[in-house]
Amino acid sequence: MTLTINGTEIARSIRSRVAQRVAETAATGKRPGLATILVGDDPASAVYVAAKRRAIRQAGMRDFHRHLPRHASRGEVAAVIDELAADPDVSGILLQLPLPAQLDAGPLIDRIPVTKDVDGLTTASVGRLARDEKGLRPCTPSGVIELLDAEGIELKGACAAVVGWGALVGRPLAQLLLRRGATVSIAHEFTADLASVTRTADIVVVATGVRGLIGSEHVKSGATVIDVGIHRTPDGLVGDVRAAELDGIAGRITPVPGGVGPMTIAMLLVNTLRAAEWDSARAALSV
Amino acid sequence: MTLTINGTEIARSIRSRVAQRVAETAATGKRPGLATILVGDDPASAVYVAAKRRAIRQAGMRDFHRHLPRHASRGEVAAVIDELAADPDVSGILLQLPLPAQLDAGPLIDRIPVTKDVDGLTTASVGRLARDEKGLRPCTPSGVIELLDAEGIELKGACAAVVGWGALVGRPLAQLLLRRGATVSIAHEFTADLASVTRTADIVVVATGVRGLIGSEHVKSGATVIDVGIHRTPDGLVGDVRAAELDGIAGRITPVPGGVGPMTIAMLLVNTLRAAEWDSARAALSV
Ligand SMILES: NC(=O)c1ccc[n+]([C@@H]2O[C@H](COP(=O)([O-])OP(=O)(O)OC[C@H]3O[C@@H](n4cnc5c(N)ncnc54)[C@H](O)[C@@H]3O)[C@@H](O)[C@H]2O)c1
Ligand SMILES: NC(=O)c1ccc[n+]([C@@H]2O[C@H](COP(=O)([O-])OP(=O)(O)OC[C@H]3O[C@@H](n4cnc5c(N)ncnc54)[C@H](O)[C@@H]3O)[C@@H](O)[C@H]2O)c1
Repeated sequence: MTLTINGTEIARSIRSRVAQRVAETAATGKRPGLATILVGDDPASAVYVAAKRRAIRQAGMRDFHRHLPRHASRGEVAAVIDELAADPDVSGILLQLPLPAQLDAGPLIDRIPVTKDVDGLTTASVGRLARDEKGLRPCTPSGVIELLDAEGIELKGACAAVVGWGALVGRPLAQLLLRRGATVSIAHEFTADLASVTRTADIVVVATGVRGLIGSEHVKSGATVIDVGIHRTPDGLVGDVRAAELDGIAGRITPVPGGVGPMTIAMLLVNTLRAAEWDSARAALSV
Repeated sequence: MTLTINGTEIARSIRSRVAQRVAETAATGKRPGLATILVGDDPASAVYVAAKRRAIRQAGMRDFHRHLPRHASRGEVAAVIDELAADPDVSGILLQLPLPAQLDAGPLIDRIPVTKDVDGLTTASVGRLARDEKGLRPCTPSGVIELLDAEGIELKGACAAVVGWGALVGRPLAQLLLRRGATVSIAHEFTADLASVTRTADIVVVATGVRGLIGSEHVKSGATVIDVGIHRTPDGLVGDVRAAELDGIAGRITPVPGGVGPMTIAMLLVNTLRAAEWDSARAALSV
């Protein structure tokens, strides 16, 4: 029988632990705060930002939000980031992507100080991850690691296949798995024989944006399958995995929705809390 | 029959191309320069630094060198780096590792500006590699890619196994191979069944520091084997691969010595040249 990994429940438990910790910290004075920056009126981005802000408030953190017009210049966005970077009440800064076409995301992201980089996407954070140094890790891949840990799946010595080598998920995830001692194979659009890579893996994580890419021919009996893909269809949300086919084959599988999705927001809360604690540790040290 | 990859010859050809380019650039005024910093009297480090300086001079570049005493403080080393960072005649800065025990390498390396980071080891360079952005790449792994290219080995769609996930070689190499479209499996000391990872690979790169780790049981017929290991023995230098066993199995193999070793210095020259050109491009842009 294939077990379903309940991401909604695992995320809920993480969020309530964060809220508890925020309440404890608030008693001593400081309350963590997240600043979200939305440029333009992309409806999907607006929905994501609203969900993040709601979660932040529910956890008892401070919700700072900046909405800039669609035609905002590079200088205007930069000025907002710089102001939030300098504000001691702002623990974390999240620049919602994608940005409107006139704005180059890379240099703007890199204005976020490494201690406030709750998305873990600045060059400095990415470099710290690759060098195994203290830093904030991207939310979706660290959510995947939390799911595996919550299920008690041993990573050290396990064989993991990461399908998709995108900057948001696949790349950082491969590094997080390696740091935990997994042997990792990375496949992508140029992989000649995908099944030969995934079929020997104990853990298969799929983050390609290709609907239904992975099916029974790709997965060995008893493997854990984590589906990061999200696609809106007339029949509701589906992932990169043909889940029905894997029933009875996979040992454990994440559903879509209710698997990885809720973990991304839970880890954003964790990162905001970590950013606040990192910041106060630095302040205490640097006086 | 197994072909031997002649790293000495490939490195020589790269070095002469660099020298030619330096001669052309020098005609227009600017001559690239490398600053090597040696702290203490470790004999192996002294030998490496001497070899690098010799190669730099042979290529027609300027050789700046700083030797600090074994007990140099963090502040003293930092001051030397800062001075070289500010010097427009210095295109590249190389801090020879390992440093004496009292010095923490990470923060000192990170003082090197990203445009002068010819070893590619700063957090900024590592982050740029992971984000696919312009930057200088570590010498040994880019030397491995040059060897594969010189031999005409197709990387796109190939299966590569990287054995060893060290910061100097394995990690950056895995990323360079992925960028070129290879499917990459990464093995390390916690890998349960090493042969199962390497035996399906078209390209096997070994960088573990474990003498003779890889033998005939690990390599499929016709595969290309790149041995990054170097061990001094009474019988001379040997690598991480039992090369004799692979004769008739591997399609191509790098010898030790004369394989990857000479490429590291060749790529240091290439990086110094790139740093000089990057720097003058920046100067031209920023007035
Ligand atoms: N659940 C969440 O909270 C969450 C968060 C972020 C991203 N995602 C989803 O994760 C997916 C990946 O995100 P990303 O930003 O890393 O994507 P990306 O577009 O940057 O990368 C996609 C990767 O998939 C690979 N790929 C494409 N076609 C393939 C094929 N046929 N076979 C194998 N590999 C193939 C590409 O080579 C690339 O490496 C997307 O579907 C995205 O919607 C979900
Ligand atoms: N030829 C050159 O110019 C050159 C340059 C740099 C490094 N090197 C050599 O490359 C090697 C690696 O360098 P590094 O700095 O990346 O090393 P490192 O010590 O940082 O990393 C070694 C890696 O090997 C792995 N490993 C150890 N034992 C293993 C085993 N039994 N099976 C599989 N993996 C194992 C470790 O887990 C680790 O990931 C060293 O031998 C070094 O001498 C050569």
